[in-house]
Amino acid sequence: MAMRAVYPGSFDPVTLGHLDLIQRGSRLFEHLVVAIGVNAAKTALFSPEERVAMIRAETGGLKNVDVATFDGLVVDFAKARGLNVILRGLRTISDFETEFQMALTNRTFAPDIETVFVMPGEKFQFISSRLIKEVAQVGGSVAAFVPEAVARALKGRFTSR
Amino acid sequence: MAMRAVYPGSFDPVTLGHLDLIQRGSRLFEHLVVAIGVNAAKTALFSPEERVAMIRAETGGLKNVDVATFDGLVVDFAKARGLNVILRGLRTISDFETEFQMALTNRTFAPDIETVFVMPGEKFQFISSRLIKEVAQVGGSVAAFVPEAVARALKGRFTSR
Amino acid sequence: MAMRAVYPGSFDPVTLGHLDLIQRGSRLFEHLVVAIGVNAAKTALFSPEERVAMIRAETGGLKNVDVATFDGLVVDFAKARGLNVILRGLRTISDFETEFQMALTNRTFAPDIETVFVMPGEKFQFISSRLIKEVAQVGGSVAAFVPEAVARALKGRFTSR
Amino acid sequence: MAMRAVYPGSFDPVTLGHLDLIQRGSRLFEHLVVAIGVNAAKTALFSPEERVAMIRAETGGLKNVDVATFDGLVVDFAKARGLNVILRGLRTISDFETEFQMALTNRTFAPDIETVFVMPGEKFQFISSRLIKEVAQVGGSVAAFVPEAVARALKGRFTSR
Amino acid sequence: MAMRAVYPGSFDPVTLGHLDLIQRGSRLFEHLVVAIGVNAAKTALFSPEERVAMIRAETGGLKNVDVATFDGLVVDFAKARGLNVILRGLRTISDFETEFQMALTNRTFAPDIETVFVMPGEKFQFISSRLIKEVAQVGGSVAAFVPEAVARALKGRFTSR
Amino acid sequence: MAMRAVYPGSFDPVTLGHLDLIQRGSRLFEHLVVAIGVNAAKTALFSPEERVAMIRAETGGLKNVDVATFDGLVVDFAKARGLNVILRGLRTISDFETEFQMALTNRTFAPDIETVFVMPGEKFQFISSRLIKEVAQVGGSVAAFVPEAVARALKGRFTSR
Repeated sequence: MAMRAVYPGSFDPVTLGHLDLIQRGSRLFEHLVVAIGVNAAKTALFSPEERVAMIRAETGGLKNVDVATFDGLVVDFAKARGLNVILRGLRTISDFETEFQMALTNRTFAPDIETVFVMPGEKFQFISSRLIKEVAQVGGSVAAFVPEAVARALKGRFTSR
Repeated sequence: MAMRAVYPGSFDPVTLGHLDLIQRGSRLFEHLVVAIGVNAAKTALFSPEERVAMIRAETGGLKNVDVATFDGLVVDFAKARGLNVILRGLRTISDFETEFQMALTNRTFAPDIETVFVMPGEKFQFISSRLIKEVAQVGGSVAAFVPEAVARALKGRFTSR
Repeated sequence: MAMRAVYPGSFDPVTLGHLDLIQRGSRLFEHLVVAIGVNAAKTALFSPEERVAMIRAETGGLKNVDVATFDGLVVDFAKARGLNVILRGLRTISDFETEFQMALTNRTFAPDIETVFVMPGEKFQFISSRLIKEVAQVGGSVAAFVPEAVARALKGRFTSR
Repeated sequence: MAMRAVYPGSFDPVTLGHLDLIQRGSRLFEHLVVAIGVNAAKTALFSPEERVAMIRAETGGLKNVDVATFDGLVVDFAKARGLNVILRGLRTISDFETEFQMALTNRTFAPDIETVFVMPGEKFQFISSRLIKEVAQVGGSVAAFVPEAVARALKGRFTSR
Repeated sequence: MAMRAVYPGSFDPVTLGHLDLIQRGSRLFEHLVVAIGVNAAKTALFSPEERVAMIRAETGGLKNVDVATFDGLVVDFAKARGLNVILRGLRTISDFETEFQMALTNRTFAPDIETVFVMPGEKFQFISSRLIKEVAQVGGSVAAFVPEAVARALKGRFTSR
Repeated sequence: MAMRAVYPGSFDPVTLGHLDLIQRGSRLFEHLVVAIGVNAAKTALFSPEERVAMIRAETGGLKNVDVATFDGLVVDFAKARGLNVILRGLRTISDFETEFQMALTNRTFAPDIETVFVMPGEKFQFISSRLIKEVAQVGGSVAAFVPEAVARALKGRFTSR
């Protein structure tokens, strides 16, 4: 059976760590869908459309990678798309509790969909979207953590406020 | 000395993991009071009255179990009720930091009240009220995690919004 | 049902942290048996008889505490003695993996015997028998970590070598 | 590119947790080689031949699963066999340090071979070969943790000593 | 090169644990600046001026300790002041993820500024400003966790609400 | 007061991670003594003299760094040498339990000697002497983890056996 994977997340915004994992996923799986969770109850810095455009701009060269949004359970999105694997990054600095809870909960909903964890490159082990937003908010440079276009977008967002 | 215990928590809502721990507590202790913390500063999905009713409905068969609310320190509640043990669940997926801080802080306030940790059944190791609310909010089934009546209440709460 | 507990361990040698937990256990439970695991495959510094004598000497004032040895599964020992609780210490510095594995394994063997975890006093959070032996071996003072008689025994053991 | 995986380990002996992971791996990957590490410096309870036979007996029905031994670096074994993925189990009770070190070290040696982590079923989260041997050694039943044939082999091994 | 350090934090309010670390820092470093982060996006219980005054009142006897506020990146503050070390407390109960992320992120921004971690005294291992505010809010005594003047200020703050 | 530090360890053998930390320490402290623990009860791959020579060869350019051996408590060594700081590396992949136990134990023995933790560079976060020996033993290349001379010594050691 061919492995077709979904890589779910908030991607608010996408980081170099996310992009490293997307590249690894595109090599591992026949098809990879980057799925941006859109939860009406959570406030995000960038709109779903902005986040889709950011990831598309950086992954254009990867033929087997798609970008989409979803607003329910990730397992329902996966079933509707015929995807049988959930890809998640595993960092040495990581919120294991949330990762394990999500993986075991998703297995309860869909035993046939397997969550697989892959480690990003070591220089991305400590990057998180939350930290990047905090740095950008106080005027720090985020050039080492996100693509150039995202760095510009972050600067514009916090300056215009 | 007879061991009389309080099992404090938010129970917003009660889960099968909580109920598993209540059953274990009812076997361990002469008397067990399930104490719902009511903090004016925290917003809950269900009212204190709803939460009391939910737990009562599921624990009716346990003669030595009571349900109550409290709004100060749990050690003050325990002293007022003559309870000498605080019961807490300990999961392999768990926020140890918060648990240890609470236990050591409570010991500072009341050295004679001992916090004891018990593990819920292994199939409840990854269930949390927060996760259940997130699943219910996006329309997922929570039947595997909460009693039937609670599942109905969650459905009603999020549909009516 | 009265709670009668077993507190299993190697106690090679008993530390002030162990004794703190024994005192807490003697207050919590109707009866407490300190059970020294005797595993032919593991080499210990002190003989089972020496370890029994050390703990007896320090717990003589606690009427409901017994000391014994066992050489099989702790759950078999507990059943034979009519004990329904396994007591274990839980430190912020602790080998959680081993503790959780033991607790869940013991529950597989004996679902009616509950493992309860209690925290020792904060000044005992970092004491371990292994560390104490390492300190004594290089001639350091262990007076802050073990009873006076145990400190003397350790000194004699390492000097006579 | 088709994913062909190696699942390395000591398997001394194979447990129900290992077999659960092998089944998950056989569904995820085109081909899966269970590779038993044979290190002259480490003493094992069962010989490499016995361990191969044990795993073969339990995985006979899985057409795309092979069993082999190796005695150098797992990445060299993978390259020689044309395998591009290393499969490892990830348990909530787990030695993360060793897992992360191995994964990052292997990536240093072979950047094109990706380590992917998969969670075994929740009832296998706390099973380990080490614990099973300890239980069998003191005469406890390991029927809940290993296949029937392995349980018999363990009994024979410890009785005959 | 003389070591001149910054100890950054929210200090909302300062605790006995913070003061213990300030004393250790004043012994380790030639100069120590306690730097109160002032982030417009985060709501604090005490104003920056109140927090400065609280820390000054308790550290008056330490000649080489200054107190200041900052509102950007801590590394920019350090550079502007000629400080070459960032001091952070490391507790056994601690949010390692956030600490490691901050330390590695700050090193990306300023490779010449080293983050050094020091452990507070063991009786301060579980104290946190967040927990203290929660206790004060429900009317509990915080006398064991903060200086007397801070305890009075907390009482006034929550009573007057 | 000038900070004079000891960096204790086994260094069997010294790794690039150790050398990274020695360089950081030589910048932080007026004087740094790398102290090789020599414990008669522990078997090492390299003799104390070999380990001293290896570290000296790599740190010759650092004027304020000395190398020595010690065979008792590190705090006794520090006192005898007039050193007031113990330096330890802190990795995201790390045995925190042992580090915290050692730091708190050493504080019990010598309250005036402070243990400070510093993070090695991120590319050294997963390197350990134990892992390096395992890799060398099975014939793998350790060139990425240790200085060239140490790599040669390891090769010679395992080939000659």
